[in-house]
Amino acid sequence: MQATKVQGLEDMATRLRIHSIRATTAAGSGHPTSCCSAADLVAALFFDVMRFRPKHPTAPGNDRFVLSKGHAAPLLYAAWAEAGALAPGDLINLRKMDSDLEGHPTPRLPFVDVATGSLGQGLSSGLGIALAARMDGSARTVFVLLGDGECAEGSVWEAAEIAGYYRLDNLVAIVDVNRFGQSQATMLEHDLQVYRKRFEAFGWRALVVDGHDMGQVVRALRRATRRSGQPAAVLARTLKGKGIPEVEDKDGWHGKPLKEDAARQAIAHLEAQLHGAKLPKARAPRKAKDAPAPPPVDPPAAQPPPPPAYAIGDMVATRLAYGEGLAKLGKSNPAVVALDGDVKNSTFAEKLKAACPEQFIEGFIAEQNLAGAGAGLAACGKIPFVSSFACFLTRACDQIRMAGVSRSNVKFCGSHVGVSIGEDGPSQMGLEDIAMFRAVPGSAVLYPGDAVCAERCVELAARRHGIVYIRTSRPNTPVIYRADEPFAIGGLKVLRQSDADAATVVAAGVTLHEALKAWEQLKARGVAVRVIDLYSVKPLDGAGLLAAARATGGRLVTVEDHYAEGGLGDAVLEALATEGVRVHKLAVREVPRSGKPAELLERYGISASHIVATVLRVTGRES
Amino acid sequence: MQATKVQGLEDMATRLRIHSIRATTAAGSGHPTSCCSAADLVAALFFDVMRFRPKHPTAPGNDRFVLSKGHAAPLLYAAWAEAGALAPGDLINLRKMDSDLEGHPTPRLPFVDVATGSLGQGLSSGLGIALAARMDGSARTVFVLLGDGECAEGSVWEAAEIAGYYRLDNLVAIVDVNRFGQSQATMLEHDLQVYRKRFEAFGWRALVVDGHDMGQVVRALRRATRRSGQPAAVLARTLKGKGIPEVEDKDGWHGKPLKEDAARQAIAHLEAQLHGAKLPKARAPRKAKDAPAPPPVDPPAAQPPPPPAYAIGDMVATRLAYGEGLAKLGKSNPAVVALDGDVKNSTFAEKLKAACPEQFIEGFIAEQNLAGAGAGLAACGKIPFVSSFACFLTRACDQIRMAGVSRSNVKFCGSHVGVSIGEDGPSQMGLEDIAMFRAVPGSAVLYPGDAVCAERCVELAARRHGIVYIRTSRPNTPVIYRADEPFAIGGLKVLRQSDADAATVVAAGVTLHEALKAWEQLKARGVAVRVIDLYSVKPLDGAGLLAAARATGGRLVTVEDHYAEGGLGDAVLEALATEGVRVHKLAVREVPRSGKPAELLERYGISASHIVATVLRVTGRES
Repeated sequence: MQATKVQGLEDMATRLRIHSIRATTAAGSGHPTSCCSAADLVAALFFDVMRFRPKHPTAPGNDRFVLSKGHAAPLLYAAWAEAGALAPGDLINLRKMDSDLEGHPTPRLPFVDVATGSLGQGLSSGLGIALAARMDGSARTVFVLLGDGECAEGSVWEAAEIAGYYRLDNLVAIVDVNRFGQSQATMLEHDLQVYRKRFEAFGWRALVVDGHDMGQVVRALRRATRRSGQPAAVLARTLKGKGIPEVEDKDGWHGKPLKEDAARQAIAHLEAQLHGAKLPKARAPRKAKDAPAPPPVDPPAAQPPPPPAYAIGDMVATRLAYGEGLAKLGKSNPAVVALDGDVKNSTFAEKLKAACPEQFIEGFIAEQNLAGAGAGLAACGKIPFVSSFACFLTRACDQIRMAGVSRSNVKFCGSHVGVSIGEDGPSQMGLEDIAMFRAVPGSAVLYPGDAVCAERCVELAARRHGIVYIRTSRPNTPVIYRADEPFAIGGLKVLRQSDADAATVVAAGVTLHEALKAWEQLKARGVAVRVIDLYSVKPLDGAGLLAAARATGGRLVTVEDHYAEGGLGDAVLEALATEGVRVHKLAVREVPRSGKPAELLERYGISASHIVATVLRVTGRES
Repeated sequence: MQATKVQGLEDMATRLRIHSIRATTAAGSGHPTSCCSAADLVAALFFDVMRFRPKHPTAPGNDRFVLSKGHAAPLLYAAWAEAGALAPGDLINLRKMDSDLEGHPTPRLPFVDVATGSLGQGLSSGLGIALAARMDGSARTVFVLLGDGECAEGSVWEAAEIAGYYRLDNLVAIVDVNRFGQSQATMLEHDLQVYRKRFEAFGWRALVVDGHDMGQVVRALRRATRRSGQPAAVLARTLKGKGIPEVEDKDGWHGKPLKEDAARQAIAHLEAQLHGAKLPKARAPRKAKDAPAPPPVDPPAAQPPPPPAYAIGDMVATRLAYGEGLAKLGKSNPAVVALDGDVKNSTFAEKLKAACPEQFIEGFIAEQNLAGAGAGLAACGKIPFVSSFACFLTRACDQIRMAGVSRSNVKFCGSHVGVSIGEDGPSQMGLEDIAMFRAVPGSAVLYPGDAVCAERCVELAARRHGIVYIRTSRPNTPVIYRADEPFAIGGLKVLRQSDADAATVVAAGVTLHEALKAWEQLKARGVAVRVIDLYSVKPLDGAGLLAAARATGGRLVTVEDHYAEGGLGDAVLEALATEGVRVHKLAVREVPRSGKPAELLERYGISASHIVATVLRVTGRES
C-alpha cells in the first residue's frame, strides 16, 4: 500500500480520536479511551475496506457495520460524519437531549441497524444481516467491531459457532483487544493467541494484527473480506486511550471523559501527529458485484395466506396452528423467515421449513443468538419469526430488551406455556413470558385460545411493525371459532353473555376452555357469567373490558396459566386501574411440580372448578 | 483395571438403562434415549470415581454431581437409587404428581443442588460449587454432566472461560456427545476434536473417550480428578439410545418413551447383556483429604453489621450505600460472597472486595454465569450477592428463573435503574427489572430510596432465605432516614400525612424524592397529600396501602422509574385488585433517550411536576 494512502488513513484515525475526545469532553461523560483504541480500525474500515454510500446507509449494495462495543459511539458518529452522513458540527451534541447522537447508538440514526450498548450482542445482529445478504444474493460484507471485554459474553460464542456452522464468509468480526474492561484488566489481557485459538475452534479464520499499525490493519481487513468459506476475525492488539499520553494503556480510565484542559492538551498532541496527507473518502459499492435487491414485501401488499381450515370442535394445539399459519404466511410472503432453537418439532416451526426450506434457519440451542440474529434480519427488511419454548425465550431477555430499544420488527413465538405442559415440570413451563414481553415498549402480546385464532395471530403479527409475541400452548384444545372469524390486535371476543351475568371471566389460551367449562357449571347452578377471550393481552381493549365489568356488577375474574405477576391479570388491572373495578385474579402462585396437565391446572388454582368457586364467592353465592 | 470391576460397572450401566426405560415407559413421557447414551458415564462416576455418602448427599466432604442435561433425570434418579439414596421401587413414580421424581431434577430431592432442565446452566452451577469448595478448603470434586446439544448455549462458554481463568481443577465437565439434539443432529455431530479444541482454547484439559468403553471412561474420569491447575473436560463419544437396538443412534427419538412392548423387548435385550458381576457400591469420601467444613453462618446468628453512618440531608447514591452495607455485612458474616460482572466500581461491590478480598469473585462480563454460579454457591451455604447494572441482569433472566425453581438463596443487586442514569441512554437503563424479579415465586424486591434504607436492605436480604432483589440508583439523593430507622421486608414508610390528604402518592427510589418535592409544591397550593415510600415492592404492605387509600379518598398515584408494565404500580394494583381503589400510574411508557437525569424524569412523566399535575387532576383541582 502507498505510504501516502497509509498516512491519509492515519490522519483520519487521528481526526476520529480528536472528534471523540472533543465530543465526550463537551458532554461531560462518555468513553473516549474506548474510542481511541479502535480509531485505526474504524478509519481503515470506513475509508479503505467498506463499500457504502454514506448518504444511503441502508442501500442493499452497501457493506454494513455494527458497533458491538456501543460505548464507542462517539467514534462511530465521527466516522459517519467524516464519511459525510452527519454534519461534523453536530458531533458536539453528543448525549444531549433531543440529539440522536445518544450515549450508545440506536436506530434513531439512519446508519445504525441495531441498538448496541448491551455488550456481546452485536455479532448476532451482524450474523442476521449476513444471513439476509446470503438470502438476497447481496455481495455485501458485514463488519462487527467488538471489544475484548465483551468477548466474555456467551452470546458472542453463540454467534461465532452459528456463523462458523453456516460458513458465513460475508461476516467479519474485528476485536479491539485493548486489555481493559470497565473495572480491571480483562481475563486474557493481550494474549491474542488465545483469542485466535477460540475463534479458530469456533470455525473462523483468525488474523492477528497490531491494531495501531495501519498497514497491517488494512491488509488484514482486506484479506478478511475475501470469500473463503469461513467467517473471519481480525484480532487487533490495541492500547486503550491510544494517542492520549496521559491515559494510554492505563487502567481506571474506562468511561471517563477528559477534563477541558486535558482534552485541549490531548488534541494538541494528536494534531501534532497529523501528516497533512490527503484524506481518504468513503468508497461506493462496486455495482456489478451486487444482485438487485428484492423489492421489500410489505405484508399488506403480499398475497394473503389462505384461511384456517379447522372445523369447530376439532382438537388442535395452538402451537400446531402456529406452524400451519407460519407455513402459509411464508409461502405467500418471501420476506418471512423463521428461526428456531432446535425445538422446531415442538413449536411446529418445522412446518415453515417443510414448505419453504430457504426461509428457515435452524438456530440450535442458542436462544440469545436467535433473538439477536432476528434483529439483524429485521434490519434488512425480513420479517423474522423466532420460536422456542416460552421459558427458553427468557434466555434472550436482554436481546429482546435491546430489540425493543431498536424498535425491531421481530416476532417471537413461545410454545409450551404454563403448567398445562404437564409432566416435564417447572423448568420447561413458560410462566413469566407475558411479563417479559409486556415490558417491551410498543410490543404486542397475543395469546390465542384456539387454532383459528392462532393462525390469525401469525398474520396479525406480520402485519404489525414491531415486536409481537405469540404465546402458544402444548395441549390439544377444541377449535371454537369459525375460519372466517375476524381478529385484530387490541381486540377481544365476548364468547358468552346474557343480561343476567353476575361477573365477567377473562381468560386466554388453555384457561379460556376452563372458563367455558366453568360457564356450563355455573349455568347448571343458575349463575350466569360473561366469558371473554382476551387473545390480545397487549394492547388490550380496555373499553370492552370496562363495558363488560360495568354490565356484570363491576366484578372481573381473570384466569391465566402464568404467574400472578405481570401477566394477563395485571394487564387487565393496568387497563382498568383508574376505574375502581374489582379484579379477582387466578394465576399460578408458586413453583409448580410435574404432573398431568389437568391435575396441575387444578392444583395451581386455574381450573374450571376454581373459576366456579371464585365466581360464587365474589357474587355472594357461596354456600 | 480388573476385568471383574469393569464388568460390575458395565452391569451397573445396564441396570441404569433398564431403570430409565422402565420409568419413562410407565410415565408415558420422558427421555430414555438421552439416559442411555450417558449410562456408562454415570455408572463410572457414581460407582468408581465419585466419593460421597448417598444418605448424606450434601455432606461437605462429598463430591458433588450436577446433571446439566436435566432431561436425563431418570438416569440420575436410577443412579441415586442404586447408590442407596432412594428406594428403587420409587423410580416408577417418575413424573407423577406428588412424587419428587419430577420430569427434570429439582432440589425437592436432597441430592439435587440446583434445578436443571434449562440447558447450558449446569456448568455455571458446578463452577459455583467448586468455588465454594475452594473457599472452604474442601477437597471435593464437582462433576457436571452436559449434553452435546447444550454446548451450543453461550452460558456453557461463560462458565468454561471463568473456570479456566480461576484454574478450578476441582471441576470436571463430562460431555455426552451423542450427536443428536431434539429436532436434528447437532452442529458438530461426532466431531470430538472440535469439542477438544474449544475446551482447550477456554483453558481446560480435555480428554476424548469412547463413552461406551467402560475402561476408557473410568481411566479418563480418574485422570480428570487429578489436581492439575486446570479444570478438566471428559468428552465422550456416545450413541443416543445406546443399548436399545431399535433406536440406537437414530434421529427422531428425542424425548420419546418406548411403548410397553418395545420397552419389554429392550429390557430383555439389556438383561441378556448382564455379566452377573458383583455390583459396585458408592464410595465414601477419604476423610483425611477433607478440611473440616466451616460451621454454617446463619445471618441472624452472625454479628450484626454496624448501623449506617449517614446524616439526614447527606447526598449519597443508594448504589454506594449498597456497597457500604455489603462490605459491613461481609465483615460480620464470612458466608457472604459477592460476584460482579466487571462493574464493581459502578455497583460498588468493590467495597466488599476491598474489605474482604477472599469473599469477592470477579465474574467479568458474563452475567449468565454470575447468576448460575450464585445458585451453586448458595447450594453450599454461601450467601451470594450478584451485582451488575439492572439492565444487564436481564441477560441472566433464565438463570434467575431457574434459581427460582431451585428456591436458591441468591441475592441480586441491579444498579443504574431507570431514566435517572441520564446520558448513557436506554441500553444502560434498567426499566424492566422489577417486572423480571417480581415474576419469580417467593422473591422479595427491595427498592431503597436513600442510603440508610439501602444499607438496611442488604441486611434484610441476607436474613431472608430465597431470592431477594435490591434495586439501586445512580444519582446522589438526600438521606431522609435516621440511622436507627427500622425497615422490614414487606414494610412501607408513610413519610408525609395529614388528616386533609386528598390523595396518596406511592413512590420508591429516585421518584420518592420527586414525590417529596411534589408534596412541597402541592402544599404551597393548599393541597395536602400523603407520601409513601414503598421500599418493599414485593412482598408489599397491602393493608398499609389500603389504609392510606381509604384515608385519602380512594385515590392513589404511583410513580416509578420503570416501565409501566410489571413494576411498582402494577404491584400496588395487584395488592389492591379486589378493593375498588383507583390507581393513577406514572411510569415510563416509551423507549427513552439520552439526556440529563432531571430532563429525562420530566420528559418521561415521572417528575415532581407530573405528580403535581396528576394529583390536581384526580382531585378535581385542575385549573
